[in-house]
Amino acid sequence: MSEFDLIERIRARAARRDDVVLGIGDDAAIVRVPAGRELLVATDTLNRGVHFPENTLPAHIGWKALAVNLSDLAAMGGTPAWCTLSLSLPQADMAWLDSFLDGFVELARLHEVALIGGDTTRGPLSVSLTLVGHAAPDQALLRSGAEIGDEIWVSGTLGDAAGALAQWRSGAQVAAPLRLRLDRPTPRVDLGQTLVGVATSAIDISDGLMADLGHICRASRVGARIDVSALPLSNALRDRFDVAWRHSLQATGGDDYELCFTAPHSARSQLASVAEACAVPLTMIGTIVEGTSVRAHMGDGSPWMPTTTGYVHFT
Amino acid sequence: MSEFDLIERIRARAARRDDVVLGIGDDAAIVRVPAGRELLVATDTLNRGVHFPENTLPAHIGWKALAVNLSDLAAMGGTPAWCTLSLSLPQADMAWLDSFLDGFVELARLHEVALIGGDTTRGPLSVSLTLVGHAAPDQALLRSGAEIGDEIWVSGTLGDAAGALAQWRSGAQVAAPLRLRLDRPTPRVDLGQTLVGVATSAIDISDGLMADLGHICRASRVGARIDVSALPLSNALRDRFDVAWRHSLQATGGDDYELCFTAPHSARSQLASVAEACAVPLTMIGTIVEGTSVRAHMGDGSPWMPTTTGYVHFT
Repeated sequence: MSEFDLIERIRARAARRDDVVLGIGDDAAIVRVPAGRELLVATDTLNRGVHFPENTLPAHIGWKALAVNLSDLAAMGGTPAWCTLSLSLPQADMAWLDSFLDGFVELARLHEVALIGGDTTRGPLSVSLTLVGHAAPDQALLRSGAEIGDEIWVSGTLGDAAGALAQWRSGAQVAAPLRLRLDRPTPRVDLGQTLVGVATSAIDISDGLMADLGHICRASRVGARIDVSALPLSNALRDRFDVAWRHSLQATGGDDYELCFTAPHSARSQLASVAEACAVPLTMIGTIVEGTSVRAHMGDGSPWMPTTTGYVHFT
Repeated sequence: MSEFDLIERIRARAARRDDVVLGIGDDAAIVRVPAGRELLVATDTLNRGVHFPENTLPAHIGWKALAVNLSDLAAMGGTPAWCTLSLSLPQADMAWLDSFLDGFVELARLHEVALIGGDTTRGPLSVSLTLVGHAAPDQALLRSGAEIGDEIWVSGTLGDAAGALAQWRSGAQVAAPLRLRLDRPTPRVDLGQTLVGVATSAIDISDGLMADLGHICRASRVGARIDVSALPLSNALRDRFDVAWRHSLQATGGDDYELCFTAPHSARSQLASVAEACAVPLTMIGTIVEGTSVRAHMGDGSPWMPTTTGYVHFT
């Protein structure tokens, strides 16, 4: 079993697109970018034990490696198109690879993403994926466009993935709906594209709402006030965590891959249509204000403080 | 010291290009592709202990991570432009990162490559780089264009990097000129671009001449005959290995990142001009023939057999 056998196995299952001139199998891939579009490029890596629990199914790793990059493009309002995959494996394990590809291919097909290249190397399990897509010039959603007075919105529900991690780390039985949010996040690609021209800024929630909204604040040179009691909540999270812990998971837990975005008050009716068109709930959670930081409060206006902190690499 | 500190350090040293609309710091980068060009995408990963010896200087790892990808684009005759970098580090070590960036930035500047994104993660040392460039439509050099009767050429000298690895593995003192070839390979970017319209096929020599020429044969559905005694040889390799070992290193050793390409006999005078323009020696080493495999012979026509085999991952 050589590197070439693995690559052949991957190539056999890579989807085709008409704009791929040359896919896997030469020194580089060749693709045609649609005329008049700017190129979007995102890269994200998943390492075992850091970005997913050791017992994660290979199919879920394959799904998630693509999902986190699709989520990056979603946060820009872009159209995903092609990706390369760098796979580091402790040994050439065909059963593992087949399962990995099951999850990867399933999500790639949903978004018509073609795998056009990459490499396989021997080493500790690690998946690095680069996703390339495109957007209309000057139309991409940036972190830097939030303006004072804008309302702050999030998609879906928050804290589920972090809830799964918290259960897993404590040795408890992990609730299936929470584990699914951790293992198979839904990148909000349609939502991101539909928000172009409506939202003033956007980011995907990978490090936690407080941290990621903080990135919008820094890039936009504004502050934010959010109401922690307004954060959207799944039944699964409500059933398994008390209010204080749940609020921390929702406000600071990462890995949900929902979108957080800002829009003027006047966009409310448009956003109702967007939510319906994309079949995803949108919840208003706060307001952009003068300042430099994210301040969180409870429903009665009293300040809120986290009982746990968001996930930060290298600390 | 957080992931964000590392990214800030990297961003501060990333080169700028006019066609980068948005570099490091948002969910994805945005670049403008020159009108009328096709996109080239290559990905290569380096893992410690697999792709470079444990004692490799960080600056050399930074150089090499970019060099191996530039070499892929060189083999396509493409123009490199932008890259993303995925860096997995055991701990957040600023001194290590600064040295790594020294080597990376030095080579990036030579080829005007802008670093536009990527990520840093905690894990065993691993560097995955995706390089994006462009080429004129239908002009890229492919592995599949070799024709029977074409002559086979290589650039530079062969076996030096493998010679360094052989010395290192045996515990011997590694000769400095050989180690430099292993640590800081020279991607033949100018040569590749100049070969467009001249060469019928091309590949870069990363796995070893026999293996890589074999890829050309498979893609072009032809065979190859090469004269092992004609393979270009550095003084450093000649001084340190006997003839039999040296021939094996030259014919099967990887990591030289020279180009191997095919061209019709009628291109000889053009190739002399190419060699002069690019200031790199080009050596004719054999001929494309009917068949499916690479056969090697000595100067007197007797068959040649390797005494060691090329480097293959996962065997």
